Amino acid sequence: MKQEKKTGSKPKSKISAKKETLNLGLLKQLCHLSAPCGNEGPMFDFLLTYITKESKNWRVKPKLVYGDKWQHNLILVFGKPTTAVFAHIDNIGFTVRYGKQLVRIGGPVCKSGFKLIGKDDKGTQQVKLNVAVNSKTGEKTLTYEGKRDFERGTDLSFLPDWRESKDFVQCCYMDNRLGVYTALKLAETLENGVIVFSTYEEHGGGSVSYIQKYLAETYKIQQALICDVSWISDGVKAHKGPVISLRDSLIPRKVCVNKLINIAKKNNCLFQLEVEGSGGSDAKELQMAEYVWDWCFVGPAEDNVHTPDEKVSKKDIEATIELYKVLLRNL
Amino acid sequence: MKQEKKTGSKPKSKISAKKETLNLGLLKQLCHLSAPCGNEGPMFDFLLTYITKESKNWRVKPKLVYGDKWQHNLILVFGKPTTAVFAHIDNIGFTVRYGKQLVRIGGPVCKSGFKLIGKDDKGTQQVKLNVAVNSKTGEKTLTYEGKRDFERGTDLSFLPDWRESKDFVQCCYMDNRLGVYTALKLAETLENGVIVFSTYEEHGGGSVSYIQKYLAETYKIQQALICDVSWISDGVKAHKGPVISLRDSLIPRKVCVNKLINIAKKNNCLFQLEVEGSGGSDAKELQMAEYVWDWCFVGPAEDNVHTPDEKVSKKDIEATIELYKVLLRNL
Amino acid sequence: MKQEKKTGSKPKSKISAKKETLNLGLLKQLCHLSAPCGNEGPMFDFLLTYITKESKNWRVKPKLVYGDKWQHNLILVFGKPTTAVFAHIDNIGFTVRYGKQLVRIGGPVCKSGFKLIGKDDKGTQQVKLNVAVNSKTGEKTLTYEGKRDFERGTDLSFLPDWRESKDFVQCCYMDNRLGVYTALKLAETLENGVIVFSTYEEHGGGSVSYIQKYLAETYKIQQALICDVSWISDGVKAHKGPVISLRDSLIPRKVCVNKLINIAKKNNCLFQLEVEGSGGSDAKELQMAEYVWDWCFVGPAEDNVHTPDEKVSKKDIEATIELYKVLLRNL
Repeated sequence: MKQEKKTGSKPKSKISAKKETLNLGLLKQLCHLSAPCGNEGPMFDFLLTYITKESKNWRVKPKLVYGDKWQHNLILVFGKPTTAVFAHIDNIGFTVRYGKQLVRIGGPVCKSGFKLIGKDDKGTQQVKLNVAVNSKTGEKTLTYEGKRDFERGTDLSFLPDWRESKDFVQCCYMDNRLGVYTALKLAETLENGVIVFSTYEEHGGGSVSYIQKYLAETYKIQQALICDVSWISDGVKAHKGPVISLRDSLIPRKVCVNKLINIAKKNNCLFQLEVEGSGGSDAKELQMAEYVWDWCFVGPAEDNVHTPDEKVSKKDIEATIELYKVLLRNL
Repeated sequence: MKQEKKTGSKPKSKISAKKETLNLGLLKQLCHLSAPCGNEGPMFDFLLTYITKESKNWRVKPKLVYGDKWQHNLILVFGKPTTAVFAHIDNIGFTVRYGKQLVRIGGPVCKSGFKLIGKDDKGTQQVKLNVAVNSKTGEKTLTYEGKRDFERGTDLSFLPDWRESKDFVQCCYMDNRLGVYTALKLAETLENGVIVFSTYEEHGGGSVSYIQKYLAETYKIQQALICDVSWISDGVKAHKGPVISLRDSLIPRKVCVNKLINIAKKNNCLFQLEVEGSGGSDAKELQMAEYVWDWCFVGPAEDNVHTPDEKVSKKDIEATIELYKVLLRNL
Repeated sequence: MKQEKKTGSKPKSKISAKKETLNLGLLKQLCHLSAPCGNEGPMFDFLLTYITKESKNWRVKPKLVYGDKWQHNLILVFGKPTTAVFAHIDNIGFTVRYGKQLVRIGGPVCKSGFKLIGKDDKGTQQVKLNVAVNSKTGEKTLTYEGKRDFERGTDLSFLPDWRESKDFVQCCYMDNRLGVYTALKLAETLENGVIVFSTYEEHGGGSVSYIQKYLAETYKIQQALICDVSWISDGVKAHKGPVISLRDSLIPRKVCVNKLINIAKKNNCLFQLEVEGSGGSDAKELQMAEYVWDWCFVGPAEDNVHTPDEKVSKKDIEATIELYKVLLRNL
């Protein structure tokens, strides 16, 4: 791990200086891509094109690791890395079962009327979600209403509806297009570190297992930040900065989160501490890996989790990017 | 991966030509063996003996990988493999707890009157399953009726009752003796590929994890077919061919299943597409492995899942074997 | 595996000879340490100090494996090991959420009035657990009563209340301070074997995965005993010796448990056989590992599981230590 640099002198001016660089057009683009688990090709393609083009202007041009062998994951290696940042590129959604039936991909909130979009060999179609609840068992049956039946196995995503106000942005899939966006902003000035764009997170995972092996073996990395989105609660509020999560369904090591908190405090970064009993992330595969990892979840909190209306504070987006920059310089 | 060969010319005649080679006596033998999770020795012994004897007549004699180090798993390596076929050899059942109590091995359907068989130091005994349901909590208590108590920890399997009609075969443990049978039929003409006879699948798995590591390291294999049995549903019918599963509780990669579907179509193979929200297989350990795997579940569907009365169409058995032959030649 | 030695000649006198060496002061000390999952530092520090000091008097001085790279795990390697003993050092507890709210670490029994203890930057505080049950949903809300609020994320443990009678010891965290104690007693005379003091077991695990990899690669070890505490039931009674578990939620291989049982019988060790359908242990990570492991749970049974009142028979503690000595000499 590197020595801490003197970066804590004027954080406030730095944060406001960053304001104009918030390129929310990029976030909007990311939110309009569809990448349900198992079908992350479109996000992968976009990222590879974007990074190939933009990385010329970055402080350090990263080594790109990808290809058939890596499925739709993409790894960026900057300088001499000691920390890896994981941002998952997949999204929740639905798979078309038989006839009009749907089964869930990951854990979307299901409410009649939600607009969905999908594409099969006959083209793209927009449909509406229907939820019927069995009054005896409480079991939910999911179907869709549309002009034609999709082909069996077609995957549907929420229809993006981008909304922006002075203080907030709102759309489906802030979770985790915002993590991807944060990682891309971090990349612009990152000198040493790894950024992983991973797949399958919303539906049980699977890719972080082999990526962590590669990173542990090749770069001897043992610490990671999970760059993902959490939720507003009675203890976590909008505009108060990203959460450093003290736990969700998993518990990171105390010594590890304390180190992060100390760096954040020393650098006057805006953040809040989260404590939950549920919720998970790519961290699970690090925790259960056959290599040693310290990890912590760091990211903004949103309202309307796993609906088409995920809503995040712009101030929290900025503060997240700033916190990531500080952490990666000091870990 | 190999180039696709010209094999699609006369599939129909090929399938009918195969009809006479369906050796259901072998399947019947397999169904009569008992191999509950953790006690797969009898199936392993049978397979090792059978393969040692029969493989002389196979197109390619495989390398056998087995021994103490491999517990009761058995791996067959043919030629230069690029694809692995996983067929689990274990079965569901019950463990004798204290007195007449039973606890489940895997997820058997529990119905009073089901006939069970078990063996301890005092010999083999046939007993009957009893299910008592607590009317308040809905909790089920499982016991057995028999002349004597089994020793604590004895494992019981369903009593095999083989039934055969013009179109169907029926017995306990089609899941997964039929997968084993399919793999053995595939082995007869297989030129390149790996066949894995794995243990523990019905009770959470555990063996595929170290087997996939061996295959990935030794043969650089990254793709697998799960040779197991699925279930008849509102979208999957008897006599319509094996299912290529687009998903169950896990979601295989779209690019991978599309490749299989294209090969199957090009070769006029009979198959149907399955989409479920639940159910799992050995694929879980591949998905979560520290090596990269593409995988897909391919197998016939049965009625009366996890009962002593599992029932499968003979036509689907034939079509499964044919599909496996085509896939292994073309992947 | 080693040849069995002639050790079975006078087991009874041996067991009684051991009685005076039962150093329950050490067990009491261990029970008074706090080490909730993710914060096992205090237990690690105690063990490292104790072992560094005491191991001079042991029959064989073990190699110690530990350090930043190993988090708060500690591995002791004696002679030429063929078997690893896993004893987890973490304990269940609670994390302070927002205000007075608590979320569980692992699966503690929750009963209003249970005394808890925690430490934050303002010092140590003793508080009381409060459990409110929603009469409609049955959902439990956990809070604490104390003079001041703990800092967010503070972890609380049960307040130790050591009780000792002629036949029993009782305190919180027999699970698994007793496993740690057993392993330390075993260490005194162990010639060949590995003892692992592992973390995180009570909350989903994570450390055994990388430890087993190290052991499998470095020492080619493939068999393990889980040195942990089980529970009194209708088939398992106090004073009847440690359980050799034929299964819990996982099923060990029959050939493996049979080997243990035979060694125990041959050496006239006191033990009882357990069969459960639920409950888990560090074994899960061995079962699911990418290396081959045979494993079995061996340990005493307790009353009042996961409460501050865990109660174990002294005779069972002695018999457990004796059984471990016999097993490690003969496996």
